[in-house]
Amino acid sequence: MIEDKDPKKTALQELGEFQLIKHLTKDFAITNASTLKGIGDDAAVLDLKDKKTVLSTDLLVEGIHFDLSYMPLKHLGYKAVMVNLSDIYAMNAVATQITVSIAVSNRFPLEALEELYAGIELATKSFNVDLIGGDTTSSKTGLLISITAIGVANDNEIAYRSGAKPHDLLVVTGDLGGAYMGLQVLEREKAVFKVNPNSQPDLEPYTYIVERQLKPEARKDIVELLKQLEVTPTAMIDISDGLSSEILHLCEQSNVGCDLYEDKIPLDPTVISACEEFSIDSTLVALSGGEDYELLFTIDQKDFDKIKGNPNLTVIGHMTDASLGANMVTRSGSKIGLTAQGWNSFKE
Amino acid sequence: MIEDKDPKKTALQELGEFQLIKHLTKDFAITNASTLKGIGDDAAVLDLKDKKTVLSTDLLVEGIHFDLSYMPLKHLGYKAVMVNLSDIYAMNAVATQITVSIAVSNRFPLEALEELYAGIELATKSFNVDLIGGDTTSSKTGLLISITAIGVANDNEIAYRSGAKPHDLLVVTGDLGGAYMGLQVLEREKAVFKVNPNSQPDLEPYTYIVERQLKPEARKDIVELLKQLEVTPTAMIDISDGLSSEILHLCEQSNVGCDLYEDKIPLDPTVISACEEFSIDSTLVALSGGEDYELLFTIDQKDFDKIKGNPNLTVIGHMTDASLGANMVTRSGSKIGLTAQGWNSFKE
Repeated sequence: MIEDKDPKKTALQELGEFQLIKHLTKDFAITNASTLKGIGDDAAVLDLKDKKTVLSTDLLVEGIHFDLSYMPLKHLGYKAVMVNLSDIYAMNAVATQITVSIAVSNRFPLEALEELYAGIELATKSFNVDLIGGDTTSSKTGLLISITAIGVANDNEIAYRSGAKPHDLLVVTGDLGGAYMGLQVLEREKAVFKVNPNSQPDLEPYTYIVERQLKPEARKDIVELLKQLEVTPTAMIDISDGLSSEILHLCEQSNVGCDLYEDKIPLDPTVISACEEFSIDSTLVALSGGEDYELLFTIDQKDFDKIKGNPNLTVIGHMTDASLGANMVTRSGSKIGLTAQGWNSFKE
Repeated sequence: MIEDKDPKKTALQELGEFQLIKHLTKDFAITNASTLKGIGDDAAVLDLKDKKTVLSTDLLVEGIHFDLSYMPLKHLGYKAVMVNLSDIYAMNAVATQITVSIAVSNRFPLEALEELYAGIELATKSFNVDLIGGDTTSSKTGLLISITAIGVANDNEIAYRSGAKPHDLLVVTGDLGGAYMGLQVLEREKAVFKVNPNSQPDLEPYTYIVERQLKPEARKDIVELLKQLEVTPTAMIDISDGLSSEILHLCEQSNVGCDLYEDKIPLDPTVISACEEFSIDSTLVALSGGEDYELLFTIDQKDFDKIKGNPNLTVIGHMTDASLGANMVTRSGSKIGLTAQGWNSFKE
């Protein structure tokens, strides 16, 4: 489904590694005062002053984490940055720099990498982070992207996974399950396309969920909102593997239990209708779907008034004593234990 | 040539991603006071105080950068860390933390990854750096390692590539060409082994150069030595692609020329005899061989007395006006222009 808009193809071996990285990064501007030296030396140099440094890294592998048959390269570049920035925001920190390394087979022409870097550039501009380094090399097969994100935070504002206390409220941003249902729609269209390459899919009714899958937005705005509301989460994590798995991480690392209320889980109407169409339970999708890149955090009850009524934030439960375990209170009022459905990339 | 000492094999899919990374990193200790939080949250948290942060990243791909038929996994883990630390030392900085991400196919059992991490652990202990994060995922084929190294330096001590001035002395550490000649020996033995699997190679005469290839040591000691000698290099780079390519980087980024003296290039006797055996010119090997991970730097002439006679340091030339270009003065006294033989991983 990727259109070849530009028939021009330049083989990567025509450029050396140095030329390639120079070419791909020539339009990137440095905008953060903390970046003293970006690309072009043995290492980048940063001046992060007396703030704490926050650092996270992720690998994205073709055929495991993304499928180029429906993921345009520009979107992939953008999403790869989002996945990493989301980890920085999940510490309640401000993202400031990234490094991007790629391993790529010769089947990709230069123009394909330009598309990828256009998406990366858009992300760096929109989220005000500087690209400060990376590595570009060849691979035997496919494309692999490794990104490291760096951020800063004041010591007393950092939200670890381990700070939740019993009676803290459990809060989630945005809505859940969209990215997973978007993937279902894209997979279905891919299967249809294989059978009939002339089929013209009408993705219009699915715009929201397809965008959630192809162009997720890391919640930088939430970190800013919480600062403005003068709320410091007692614990925070981003939702990459699904709500259930993330709640279990918070419970384990904070040594608390949790009561999650099924009827409070925020779902977009598009997600609900897609779940009906695909005959999947929407709660299951929210619990185990993953890739929403929303933030999940806990706050002290005294902060409830500060967040009450904010359309970006939904209280979905509260933390309990560790001995009570992590549970979901269903719509019918029964309690069931939450189980990890975290994604295992080694399973076939 | 890798012996299977332990017939026990555990499939990676038996563990999830979380279990795998927990298992592989359980023996790693945090030893730097600047590491506030290592593995286990959305991001690591560092307290680098008022020092400048130095950061570098590298990708190593099976079949491109390493060949597991003669590179034991433990050595590979060690070398992957060295490659990155070398970039930090090339800034005249102290390395403090690393992240390690791997993409690995299911053909590797858990025990293979344990070997890899044993090498990584040995490197972190020997060089006093903390493993603070990473990502572990599956790949379609082979093994890929992405490492990011973090270090700290005082502002006035950082050695960029761009600070060399005409008349500065050009200094190299250790000796050159060993890693390349070690690779030639290993490639030859691999070819022999393919023809006759019962052949017992005698690598004893080649111990030094094979070790240079399989177990390079990043020059942390040089950064410490320079501090002790009270010498701050005006420019510095590490030798990963060969002396010629690195000199050209220094010349280009400092806007200077260079006269390199062929007869000053430090060569180990083992390298010279291996070059004779393989009928390769030893100067060419030093200029273009690569992977020595020695440091190449420039100093002001007034600092010459401080480094004079140090067995770790060899003055191999001096910088000139940019208009004169980068040249080598041969043993016969003629001048030839240096050309980049930098390695292009995209060429087949």
